[in-house]
Amino acid sequence: MEFSFTTLGTASARPTSNRYPSAHILTIGGRLFLIDCGESAQIQMTRAGLSIARIDNVFISHLHGDHVFGLFGLLSTMDMIGRVSPLHMYAPSQMRSVIDFFLKQFGGLKYQVVLHTVKCAEPVKILEFKTLDVYAFPLRHRVETYGYLFKEKAPQQNIIKEKIEEKHLTIEEMARLKEGNNITRDGGEVLLSSELTYTPFYPRSFAYCCDTAPFRELPGWVKGVDLMYHEATYGNDLDVLAKSTFHSTAADAAQCAKDACAAKLVIGHYSSRYRNVEVLLAEARKLFPETYLSKEGTKFDIPVKTAFKSE
Amino acid sequence: MEFSFTTLGTASARPTSNRYPSAHILTIGGRLFLIDCGESAQIQMTRAGLSIARIDNVFISHLHGDHVFGLFGLLSTMDMIGRVSPLHMYAPSQMRSVIDFFLKQFGGLKYQVVLHTVKCAEPVKILEFKTLDVYAFPLRHRVETYGYLFKEKAPQQNIIKEKIEEKHLTIEEMARLKEGNNITRDGGEVLLSSELTYTPFYPRSFAYCCDTAPFRELPGWVKGVDLMYHEATYGNDLDVLAKSTFHSTAADAAQCAKDACAAKLVIGHYSSRYRNVEVLLAEARKLFPETYLSKEGTKFDIPVKTAFKSE
Repeated sequence: MEFSFTTLGTASARPTSNRYPSAHILTIGGRLFLIDCGESAQIQMTRAGLSIARIDNVFISHLHGDHVFGLFGLLSTMDMIGRVSPLHMYAPSQMRSVIDFFLKQFGGLKYQVVLHTVKCAEPVKILEFKTLDVYAFPLRHRVETYGYLFKEKAPQQNIIKEKIEEKHLTIEEMARLKEGNNITRDGGEVLLSSELTYTPFYPRSFAYCCDTAPFRELPGWVKGVDLMYHEATYGNDLDVLAKSTFHSTAADAAQCAKDACAAKLVIGHYSSRYRNVEVLLAEARKLFPETYLSKEGTKFDIPVKTAFKSE
Repeated sequence: MEFSFTTLGTASARPTSNRYPSAHILTIGGRLFLIDCGESAQIQMTRAGLSIARIDNVFISHLHGDHVFGLFGLLSTMDMIGRVSPLHMYAPSQMRSVIDFFLKQFGGLKYQVVLHTVKCAEPVKILEFKTLDVYAFPLRHRVETYGYLFKEKAPQQNIIKEKIEEKHLTIEEMARLKEGNNITRDGGEVLLSSELTYTPFYPRSFAYCCDTAPFRELPGWVKGVDLMYHEATYGNDLDVLAKSTFHSTAADAAQCAKDACAAKLVIGHYSSRYRNVEVLLAEARKLFPETYLSKEGTKFDIPVKTAFKSE
């Protein structure tokens, strides 16, 4: 099952000729999750071959223009292409007046925009699917801002094939073992779930941390994440500016990934001052070698992590 | 002096991977006039090498999203790059609430947006510079919509050099002749302005006609224009759809250019149904051979038209 992250825009507040404002697609299976929706998001999606029709959930970090000015265009186009199913939007409460204004000024939509207001001081689950949980957590920015964590659910254990015959397992026993239960048979024989089952795959996870200044709790909230997207607006040379504007440097992002024991870090939200962002990459890699640069249209895959199947 | 028209977006309501919503720059001398401001306009400008800082006047045809969703981003970026001088905006009255909402929701700007409400039933002058007049005129669309006509002012006549010595013209005589006056000297000699002066150049003009259904008065209002930009949302195959949505076909655009005796027609605002817009060009050229396709970033120059200087 696909689990991938595509950047549609890597600019910070001021776009450049080839860097678009913040917008990202997380693809999990057949679902597309849109995270932030800066100007041109809909066009960048089309360019990346991602269908707008497949978005049912939009996550907005905060109400700064470079993260939301693509919403009106997206909502209009969704209507135009015949959307009728509700669109769910997760965003700070200020989004209410933006949606209301849009509906009033630019006409009704043939579908409903269901706004789920995000408000939390620590991570909370905001959305759940059969195989996926989504959490919001607060970030530290100049305005109310949230990050989002997407975690596949731990799968049920599978029975090790060879053990079925060896232990003459019944269907009921197998069902209980798969749920992690140990069984004591009538004769006193003990069947251990840990010995007779295996984990078919390890759940994958993705964290979105943008915009934010670094803060102590963040790495703990996204501990062990497979892929962390973290803003790196500035380099070390503009550390003071990063602090005063509640942004992060590339080194801040790397330190967060390191402290969180993330497997991979993708940085973005580059200030337009950096024509060449390799300098940001180099600064981050000093602390966290598994850092990569986001680029418009670039997809980062998180492959399925299968566990051992039998001894 | 430059007089050119650059298309930033050629899409109609639905953008595609390479067609952006409506936005155009008319460059006259050192001034950039932005006409409509669809999503991504600011980025398309940067790509075309056109400086946002040089825009002082924005003209909006109507309040459909594909003509205005780039405004919030543009206004924000103007603020970010240090704009302090007022930005003048010419638009239908509905723009007031859009600007008010933007200022309230996304923070104050360090410059003023001066909204000049356009309201007319026939062409009216809405702006005047030393060498240029700008007119608005109503179009026929589903909502209140205006087109814009930019006309260089007729220049003062120049004295034909050879005549200065031949007629022993005084400075006062020359001043009066340049203004078009004839002079009768004390001895009875008549100095004809038409014989002693020449027109240094013919004033150039540009008309923007988008979005609109064709209507009888339009060609007369833009008579003799050098360059007409006219929407050509559909081809002959969708003539019925064009009519019902108050849009034009390529043939409608061509007929308007022909009836207006325009020198050149540029078509755009293509429906996303047309992957290849050559079919629209072919249909237009049957009626008006001097038709050209707009394309993102393409500039159309209107060269200075000098008149004869002396016999």
